[in-house]
Amino acid sequence: MERENQIHQSVKGPHIKKGLLIINTGNGKGKTTAALGVLFRAWGRDMKVRMFQFLKHTTAHFGEHRAAKKLGIPIQAMGDGFTWRSKDLATTSALAVQQWENCKAAILSGEDDIIILDEFTYPLHYGWIPVVEVLEVLQQRRPLLHVIITGRYAPQELIDYADLVTEMQVVKHPYRDQGIRAQAGIEF
Amino acid sequence: MERENQIHQSVKGPHIKKGLLIINTGNGKGKTTAALGVLFRAWGRDMKVRMFQFLKHTTAHFGEHRAAKKLGIPIQAMGDGFTWRSKDLATTSALAVQQWENCKAAILSGEDDIIILDEFTYPLHYGWIPVVEVLEVLQQRRPLLHVIITGRYAPQELIDYADLVTEMQVVKHPYRDQGIRAQAGIEF
Repeated sequence: MERENQIHQSVKGPHIKKGLLIINTGNGKGKTTAALGVLFRAWGRDMKVRMFQFLKHTTAHFGEHRAAKKLGIPIQAMGDGFTWRSKDLATTSALAVQQWENCKAAILSGEDDIIILDEFTYPLHYGWIPVVEVLEVLQQRRPLLHVIITGRYAPQELIDYADLVTEMQVVKHPYRDQGIRAQAGIEF
Repeated sequence: MERENQIHQSVKGPHIKKGLLIINTGNGKGKTTAALGVLFRAWGRDMKVRMFQFLKHTTAHFGEHRAAKKLGIPIQAMGDGFTWRSKDLATTSALAVQQWENCKAAILSGEDDIIILDEFTYPLHYGWIPVVEVLEVLQQRRPLLHVIITGRYAPQELIDYADLVTEMQVVKHPYRDQGIRAQAGIEF
């Protein structure tokens, strides 16, 4: 009935072990947060995990950055804090392209067990980085490397190639419904 | 455009600070995982956070338990590994009721900043714990305490009372679609 309680069943299932391409998309919350949950679990199992963040400001110092710094987990943000109000997309897109170069190097180096590309769907959606190139790089990764991509508007070609895609949907939202602001520790 | 990039906007919005009741529900993945992401962020901000797990076996030693142990974050599972194949629901439900007593004490103690009740929706859904009682306890908590509840079939009364509800939906699932088994570090 519940997947998270079916681990024992699953383990009895086919013994295919492979690096998954996981996508957390949709308009709801929890896309980045769930990726951080994986990072936490993986760290608990002494796996090598790292996160590259797109768009978020290079100097971002949110809860995840603080926690990761304490634990020596690399979380690297590169962006100018892009929002839908941003005007200077030249800088935003250049930083995204530069960050993708870092990701490529990490993916192809084969040194990690899990690599998270946070809010990576936006540069793809806006056409700053070609999806075909991303698929090529993902296909070249070592077979057991898991890659997690988060963000809205995941391109269909990426979804087609992915192993696991979850859509986070808003049922009820405190900002929209009650005018409550973002709470430290919960959302950043 | 993207909520996670609208933090700066949100901070300019109404300055209401309150403890949220957050529900991660739906049939998709990422419900528990997103709660763990919050736990990670909160720990990064030196907030007091703890997790109570329902149904999962009392001796569960998944990635989250290993990570939490290393960091001194209390994650307490109490259950007999209930699945939809379970026959002995008397034990399962008794353990859930007992775990709820622990949760109540923690919620009312006011000692934490965030309390996560993982897979708590099932005992509610199956009627082992009355939803009215849960709502009463939640209403008595200190105003800044955040509570996160995860699991499928969240009861409507709980959703009505919640501040933030997200539904995780399956778009593509490796077990169902490809026969791949659960991967350590990613899902447990």
